[in-house]
Amino acid sequence: MSFKLTILGCDSAIPTVDKQQTAQLLNINERFFLIDCGENTQVQLRKYQLSFQRISHVLISHLHGDHYYGLIGLITSMHLLGRNKGLHIYAHEALKEIINVQLSASNTNLNYPLFFHVLPKDEEKILFKDDNVVISNILLDHTIDCSGFLFKEISSKRKIIKEKINEHNIPHNKIDEINNGADYINDNNQVINNNELTSIISNLHSYAYCSDTRFSSRIVPIISDVDVLYHEATFSKDLVKRAVETGHSTTKEAANIAKKANVKKLLIGHYSKRYKDLNILLDESKQYFNNSSLTKEGDVFDFNSL
Amino acid sequence: MSFKLTILGCDSAIPTVDKQQTAQLLNINERFFLIDCGENTQVQLRKYQLSFQRISHVLISHLHGDHYYGLIGLITSMHLLGRNKGLHIYAHEALKEIINVQLSASNTNLNYPLFFHVLPKDEEKILFKDDNVVISNILLDHTIDCSGFLFKEISSKRKIIKEKINEHNIPHNKIDEINNGADYINDNNQVINNNELTSIISNLHSYAYCSDTRFSSRIVPIISDVDVLYHEATFSKDLVKRAVETGHSTTKEAANIAKKANVKKLLIGHYSKRYKDLNILLDESKQYFNNSSLTKEGDVFDFNSL
Repeated sequence: MSFKLTILGCDSAIPTVDKQQTAQLLNINERFFLIDCGENTQVQLRKYQLSFQRISHVLISHLHGDHYYGLIGLITSMHLLGRNKGLHIYAHEALKEIINVQLSASNTNLNYPLFFHVLPKDEEKILFKDDNVVISNILLDHTIDCSGFLFKEISSKRKIIKEKINEHNIPHNKIDEINNGADYINDNNQVINNNELTSIISNLHSYAYCSDTRFSSRIVPIISDVDVLYHEATFSKDLVKRAVETGHSTTKEAANIAKKANVKKLLIGHYSKRYKDLNILLDESKQYFNNSSLTKEGDVFDFNSL
Repeated sequence: MSFKLTILGCDSAIPTVDKQQTAQLLNINERFFLIDCGENTQVQLRKYQLSFQRISHVLISHLHGDHYYGLIGLITSMHLLGRNKGLHIYAHEALKEIINVQLSASNTNLNYPLFFHVLPKDEEKILFKDDNVVISNILLDHTIDCSGFLFKEISSKRKIIKEKINEHNIPHNKIDEINNGADYINDNNQVINNNELTSIISNLHSYAYCSDTRFSSRIVPIISDVDVLYHEATFSKDLVKRAVETGHSTTKEAANIAKKANVKKLLIGHYSKRYKDLNILLDESKQYFNNSSLTKEGDVFDFNSL
């Protein structure tokens, strides 16, 4: 099952010619989730040849402009290009009004349905679930209501346990049937239940997105053991006071969350403009959590080959 | 006096990697007017090294997203970069609410004043006037309320009439004083009034911006004799029916307006994405009005050297 993250933008606050604001596209089994949508995200999607008509869900962490100013343009372009498939938006309540006043000012009746889901402000719960993934919100600690997102791959699919093939002398041509749920009838007409022969596929991926936020140890159990954690690291570790004041984290704080939560890999981003050389941030992060990586516009992280 | 137009974007509807939506910057005597503000305009300003903190007035023709979705980001970035100088916005009424709901959602109190001026919907009048320029709206014919803008340079400055120098035998060292408004006292102690010696500087520039609009001959007397007319030409002349339906103009229509209004130069833009080679549009326009030019992102038109 594909589980692939593309970074469309990873900079904070003010966009410049070569710095795009936060947006990520997560492909889980060819279902596309857009996480945050800074100004110009629709062009970033085009730049990396990612069809925005295939996006079915948009998750907006919070209503600072660098995380959502590109959404109204994306919604409008989807409409102009003839979309008729519904779009699900998960965001804090005020975004609904922000979208509606803009559609109303241009007399636009979208030719596809928008399904707006209000993010909870004081509890973590499941936002979405299908056969492949369950998505929950994560309460973060920023200057306004802010939500991270936890994506956990799930599977109802079962696969034959290798040892059972020899044990029951199962012929090769029966394996597909058994993988698809059939019981096995052996030469003695004895029925061996599918549950005894198969187990649920267990190599399932998980991703936690945490931006923007202060250091918050309460999220550790929520994100524990995920494959990949994206945690903002706006500042270097010497600016911890500034980070607290502005509702952000330092490299050291992001790395400490990764370590405490025992994640496999940490991605950092949302860099302050003051850092011309981002390796300063990476080196700091690696001091506390070795498997740290910078995110850069255009990066693709394929969870099947991490 | 500087009178210079920079094209920041000139494409219609949907932005792509190399096609920016409508935005223009007009520099009149180092006062900067932003006309329309499609998504990503703040980055376009940076790309062409135009300081957006120097913009004092923003004029938004209408509330289709390709003409204003970049404004909220620009307003926010001005704030984050410490602006304290007021910003004047001229637009249709709904934009005020659109800006306010977004500032409110992020708990932003701008550290500079926004002065919002509602564009008239059924009359043409003066929007702004200072010592250098008078700006009026132009009622256009689009699918929603839409306004063009007419910029006319004015001058209260007077300059000595050459013939008067000999006639009154005026010494060279008196000319500056007279240009600055002084009367002249001749050798017979006779006072010659400044108004008799000087005339108002008359080489004054003018610019009319008309987008988006159907062909509308009623604007001809309003924009007559301007130096430069920017008139949208979304379609080639064979698509006149489509132009009427969608509230736009063809090349031939734009050129006919330019001809009837006796303008010096016509700029066309707001091209439909269907034209890969814009010279098709230019050639058509030239058939009916020879001094036609395409606009392209990054073009600068200096009215002092047209």
